[in-house]
Parts: sequence; C-alpha cells; structure tokens
Amino acid sequence: MSKGLFITVEGGEGAGKTTVLDRIEAKLLEEGLDVVRTREPGGIKIAEQIRNVILDVTHTEMDSRTEALLYAAARRQHLVEKVLPAIDAGQIVLCDRFIDSSLAYQGYARQIGFDEVKAINEFAIEGYLPDLTLFFDVDPKVGLTRIDLDQSREINRLDQEKLDFHQRVRDGYQKVMNVYPNRIKRINANLSIDEVFTQAMKEIKRYVDVRR
Amino acid sequence: MSKGLFITVEGGEGAGKTTVLDRIEAKLLEEGLDVVRTREPGGIKIAEQIRNVILDVTHTEMDSRTEALLYAAARRQHLVEKVLPAIDAGQIVLCDRFIDSSLAYQGYARQIGFDEVKAINEFAIEGYLPDLTLFFDVDPKVGLTRIDLDQSREINRLDQEKLDFHQRVRDGYQKVMNVYPNRIKRINANLSIDEVFTQAMKEIKRYVDVRR
Repeated sequence: MSKGLFITVEGGEGAGKTTVLDRIEAKLLEEGLDVVRTREPGGIKIAEQIRNVILDVTHTEMDSRTEALLYAAARRQHLVEKVLPAIDAGQIVLCDRFIDSSLAYQGYARQIGFDEVKAINEFAIEGYLPDLTLFFDVDPKVGLTRIDLDQSREINRLDQEKLDFHQRVRDGYQKVMNVYPNRIKRINANLSIDEVFTQAMKEIKRYVDVRR
Repeated sequence: MSKGLFITVEGGEGAGKTTVLDRIEAKLLEEGLDVVRTREPGGIKIAEQIRNVILDVTHTEMDSRTEALLYAAARRQHLVEKVLPAIDAGQIVLCDRFIDSSLAYQGYARQIGFDEVKAINEFAIEGYLPDLTLFFDVDPKVGLTRIDLDQSREINRLDQEKLDFHQRVRDGYQKVMNVYPNRIKRINANLSIDEVFTQAMKEIKRYVDVRR
C-alpha cells in the first residue's frame, strides 16, 4: 500500500488490550504486513519522560488539568515523531490508546469537561485521527477482576481508582462513540480473549487484506 | 488586605525584568507588604521536572506544539500549587512570565497560531488572569546589546536571525496588548533601570498602598 493505516485500541482497565494487541500484531506479521506496534503515553524518549512525570506515585499533588496537558503533550510528540512517519512509509500502526482515552478518562470520568479536553487534544493532533479505533468495552467488575488475577502486573496510580471511577470511564467512552460513530467500533470485551480477538480481526479486515 | 494581588512581568530578552523585579520586591518588602516572588515554573517539583524535559538540550526533536503544551502544563501546576494559595492568603505575587509569554513566543513568534495557543492556555489557567501585567517593551537591538557582553562585536547572520525573531516576539506582545488592553501596561524598557523601576512602581501603586 502507498499510505499506511492508523489503528488505535481503547478501553478500561483489564479489557485485554495488551493481550489481544499481541495477537493482532502476530497475525498481521504472519500475513507479511509491515506493522508498527506502539502505545501511549510513551514509545519515544520525550514521551517516556513525560510519562514518568505523569505516573510518578509521589506526585499526589498533580492537578487533573496538568495531567491532561501532559498527556496531550506526550501524544503530540509520539504522533509527529513515530506515528506519522510510519503511516507515510506505508506501515500499519497499532497504537494502544490515543485521544479517546483522554476524552473518557480526563474529560468525562475526572470531570474536567469533555469539550475542553477535546480542544487541547485537537491542538495536539491537528486533525490526524485514527482510520479505525477498536473500543474494548468491558464491564468494570469483569475488568478489575482480571487485573487482580494477574499478580505480575505492576500496580500504578490509575489502577488504584475505585470501581465507580471505571464505570464513569465506560460512560465516557460511550460519549466518545456518540461523537465519532464511524471511526470507533465497539468490541464486546467481556467475552474470552479468543472471541475478542476474532471480533477485532473482523473489523481490521475491512481495512487490511488478510487471507484467513 | 483580605485577598492578595497577582502581578506578572513580561518582555523580551534584555528588557531588565529580573533586575527591576528585584527592586520592586525590595520596595514592597520595605513597605511591610507580604510578597511572594516567583517565576515560571516556580520551583515546585512537578513543574521543575516538566522544565527539565523542555530545556534538555538533547531534545532537538521537540515539536513546537509539544513544547507549548508542556509550558501550559507547568503553568497550570505552578498556578494551582503556588500562586493561587498565596493570593488566597492575601499575599502579593510577583511572577516573572505567565500566559502572555506563551502567546508572544509560541503563538506569534514561532507561528503556531495565536488563538490556538490562547485556547490551551485558557484551559490551563481557567480564567485566573493577573490583576496587573507589566510589559517591559524594549527595542530588540537595545535588549540584545544589553545581554551581549562584547558590544564591539560585528553583527553576523545568526545575530540577524536572533534580531528578527525578537522583533516578532515584540510584535506578538503588541498583539497580546490589543487582546488585553486593561490588564497589561506598557513600560518603556529602553530607558535606564531607574526609570523603568519608577514607571513600574507608578502602575503598581494603583493597586498597592505604597507611601513613598
């Protein structure tokens, strides 16, 4: 292909994003496609440094608007330095989280204001929205139970939030879907990993030539 | 006083901001007033960490919009953690640079877009504009000569680029003054430090009870 593809995966904690992205990546590579796997916030030096400021557990004084601006800054740098060059080179970019995470988490769940968080993110992305976004929709109870079962996973500040917060995140994603109904596809992430993977690949196949 | 005062000082390179702020601070302290001298990012931990990301000389790949978002994030945290508590405690806050620097430097001189940089900064400050802003307006030739120790040096190409940039910064500040004509007072900073200080105190006396 002459121009690449920008696919993002979204969802709450324990939705299975990482596990399913591993399988999607493997599948596309098996098909001989040129895939770039990345995630937010991070993936490049400046964004990783910003991520360290955001996730530092000692930063209890971090204001929620400061946090939203830092996410937007990391997003901007990651986009111009990693995502756009890959798309220009014809690659398929698989990115774990993008603008919709900020809208659902900061804008809606943390109640900064959906439209205000959208405004600073529009400044950051300058219209470069994903071609396809998979929203892994999981019941917060199911998602948080999955996290608890995985003892090897590091607990970060966001993991410590309460169940009702994660319900608000889910409501936030619903609002995001109403704003971008064509770009975002809902995936039922309460099902098994196999079934989530199958649903995700079905959506990706509309954009990518996958044989099996 | 029950509620404090928020005064910011703005201007290009060599405008004499630091020297005159030293004298303003000394004068207000002499009058027995409760003064907090600060600058962005103001010595608070999170903002210093953000500053380190911005000023790291190895970050040659830093995008100008990333930089603008990082400045807004540091501004936000400094405002909520240091400036607002001081104002609430009835103190006079003297701050070296604030939102107008971003508008003049990033928005105008670096050509990101004045209104776009204004939007992310309005997100950051949530309406908490200074009560008074002193714009130290200096001719770029005068300002750059002040900070250049070797005044006999011939002007080369880089100096000319520097001059052009600082002329754009000055034009940017003019645009900022048109947007906020009541808040911002122009101080002729081509004059001597004594005269700049006298002009500055004249403006401050409209807000603060200073005897002499």
